[in-house]
Amino acid sequence: MCEANAYLLGDRGETLIMESVDEVSPEGDGLKLVNIFGEQKFIRAVIHSLSLVDHKVFLKELDRRP
Amino acid sequence: MCEANAYLLGDRGETLIMESVDEVSPEGDGLKLVNIFGEQKFIRAVIHSLSLVDHKVFLKELDRRP
Repeated sequence: MCEANAYLLGDRGETLIMESVDEVSPEGDGLKLVNIFGEQKFIRAVIHSLSLVDHKVFLKELDRRP
Repeated sequence: MCEANAYLLGDRGETLIMESVDEVSPEGDGLKLVNIFGEQKFIRAVIHSLSLVDHKVFLKELDRRP
């Protein structure tokens, strides 16, 4: 299986937000993450970068200010 | 190995732009792709979505208009 772990990049480094992620797709003003177990998570972020051989997906939170 | 193929989403569907992609990272006004052979490609796009179990990374070209 070639799933990855999703990390949120922030001021305080990387925060693991979901393991074993399969699908990441835009939804509304953010992203929907679905893992290989079918669990879903929504996060107000964009996909920043990928390191697939390391099984890492980096997301960047959108600015909360209007 | 858990590399993926990178596709560009456009008006005419998906276009394969690089196989066996390992790293995707922001560079300038676009993305740098590096495959498992160390080959690099720059593309003026953002990461749109992922389907990792299918080994697919979808990129979306940035608007070329100023």
